[in-house]
Amino acid sequence: MNETIRTILEHRSIRHFSEDKLTKEDVKLLVQSAQAASTSSYIQAYSIIGVTDRQKKEKLAELAGGQQYVADNGHLFVFCADFYRHEEMAKAYNLDVSESVESTEKFMVGVIDAALAAQNMSVAAESMGLGICYIGGIRNDLQGVSELLQLPHLVLPLFGLVVGHPTKETDQKPRLPLQHIYHENGYHLDHATHLEEYDELISSYYHERTGGKRHDRWTEQITGMLSMPKRMYMKQFVESKGYNKR
Amino acid sequence: MNETIRTILEHRSIRHFSEDKLTKEDVKLLVQSAQAASTSSYIQAYSIIGVTDRQKKEKLAELAGGQQYVADNGHLFVFCADFYRHEEMAKAYNLDVSESVESTEKFMVGVIDAALAAQNMSVAAESMGLGICYIGGIRNDLQGVSELLQLPHLVLPLFGLVVGHPTKETDQKPRLPLQHIYHENGYHLDHATHLEEYDELISSYYHERTGGKRHDRWTEQITGMLSMPKRMYMKQFVESKGYNKR
Repeated sequence: MNETIRTILEHRSIRHFSEDKLTKEDVKLLVQSAQAASTSSYIQAYSIIGVTDRQKKEKLAELAGGQQYVADNGHLFVFCADFYRHEEMAKAYNLDVSESVESTEKFMVGVIDAALAAQNMSVAAESMGLGICYIGGIRNDLQGVSELLQLPHLVLPLFGLVVGHPTKETDQKPRLPLQHIYHENGYHLDHATHLEEYDELISSYYHERTGGKRHDRWTEQITGMLSMPKRMYMKQFVESKGYNKR
Repeated sequence: MNETIRTILEHRSIRHFSEDKLTKEDVKLLVQSAQAASTSSYIQAYSIIGVTDRQKKEKLAELAGGQQYVADNGHLFVFCADFYRHEEMAKAYNLDVSESVESTEKFMVGVIDAALAAQNMSVAAESMGLGICYIGGIRNDLQGVSELLQLPHLVLPLFGLVVGHPTKETDQKPRLPLQHIYHENGYHLDHATHLEEYDELISSYYHERTGGKRHDRWTEQITGMLSMPKRMYMKQFVESKGYNKR
C-alpha cells in the first residue's frame, strides 16, 4: 500500500486544533490541490472563501450550531457552487445562460465540482500532517452565511472545511461493510439491508468509547436522525440563489 | 512537496486504456479508499455500482453519448446518491423518514457524500499509476442507466468513473488563476471576472495543441456551451427518484 492510500485510509475528522495558523504557502498549495480535481466539461463552477477574520469565524461557529472548532483552527474554507462568474462572462458575448444555469442539472454540476475540489484539499491537507473536518452545520443558516461572506446571486455556500494542526486525535468510525456500498453489474436489494452485523460492531464501538453510556446501533442512530426533518428551508433558499428552478 | 500532493497536482483525465482489467484486490482497495472519505453525520448516503458486464458497458457507452472509453477501460464505477437503504432501515423502527429524505437538503447530502467518495477513489487510483476519467455523460439518460443497473427508488446515479492502465497521456488543462477561485473573508465581485489573461492562456493552449485549428478562449467556450441548455429533464427525473421534492 502506498503512502497516498495510507493517508486516505487513515482519515478521521479532527475537532481540536492548535492555535497555529496555516501559512500563505500552505493555503496556496491546498487551493491548488483543490483546483486540480476534475471539473465537469472544464466549467470550474465553484469558489472557495477562506475565512481568517476572527469575528467572522466566531459568527460562522455560531451559525453552524455553536461548534467552537469552526472558529478555532488553522484555517477555515467555505466551498460554494458558483455560476455567478459564468453569468457575468456571458454578458460580454450577449449570451443568455439563465435557462441552463437555473436547471437542476447545473445545480448538481456546481455541487459535484465543489465537492471534488474539497476532497482533493482534504487529502492534500492530511498528507501534510494536518487534520480536517467538514462543516455541514453552515447549512443551518445559509442566508446568514451568504450575508456574512457577501455572496452574490448564484454563489451558493455548501459546506465549510476546517484545517489545522491536530491537538487531539479521534477514533476512526467503521464504515459500512463493502458489500453494502459496492454492487456489481446492478443494484442488489438484499445487499443494501441486513445490517445486523454492522449494527453490532457500531454498538460495541460506542459502548467501548463511552464507558458503556452509549450503545447505539448505526441503523437506530441514523433513522432516528432522519425521522426529524431539518433544514427544510433549503429548497426555497437554493431557488432564491438562482439554482434548481427548472 | 510530498508524493500525495504531487499525485493530486499531476491529475489529468485519461480516455485511452489498455485491455488489462483491474484485479479484485485493486477494486477492493479503491472502494475502501472511497469509503474512507468524510460522510455527512455518518449517514453514508451513496452506493457504487461496478460494471464489468461487457454488454452493459457498451450500453452505458452508448447512453453517455458514444464515448468508447466508457466501455474500454480497466473498470467502470457508477456513483449514486442512495437513501434507499435508509428508508428500508426506518421500516424496522416504524419511523417515517420520507419528509427528510425528499428534501433538497438531503439531495445535497447524497450528492456531496457520493462526490467525496469518488474523489478519494480517483486520487487513490492515480497514486497506483492508474488513470481516471469522470463520466458526466451518463446524465444524458438517467432513466436508461437506472433500468440497466436495476436501481430502485432513491438510488440516483450521478456520474461514472472509469479507471484503468493509461495507454495515451493527455495534457493538463490549466485551471483558473487562484485569485478567481479563492476569495478571502468575503466574495470579491471583481475577482470573479476580468479573465482576459486566462483567456489568452487557454487560447494559446488550444492553438498549440491543434496546430492552429482551435483557439477558443475559456470564457467563449464555456458561455457558448451554457447558452445551449441540456439535460433539462433532470428536475423531473430527480423528483421521480424521490429526491428534491420539498
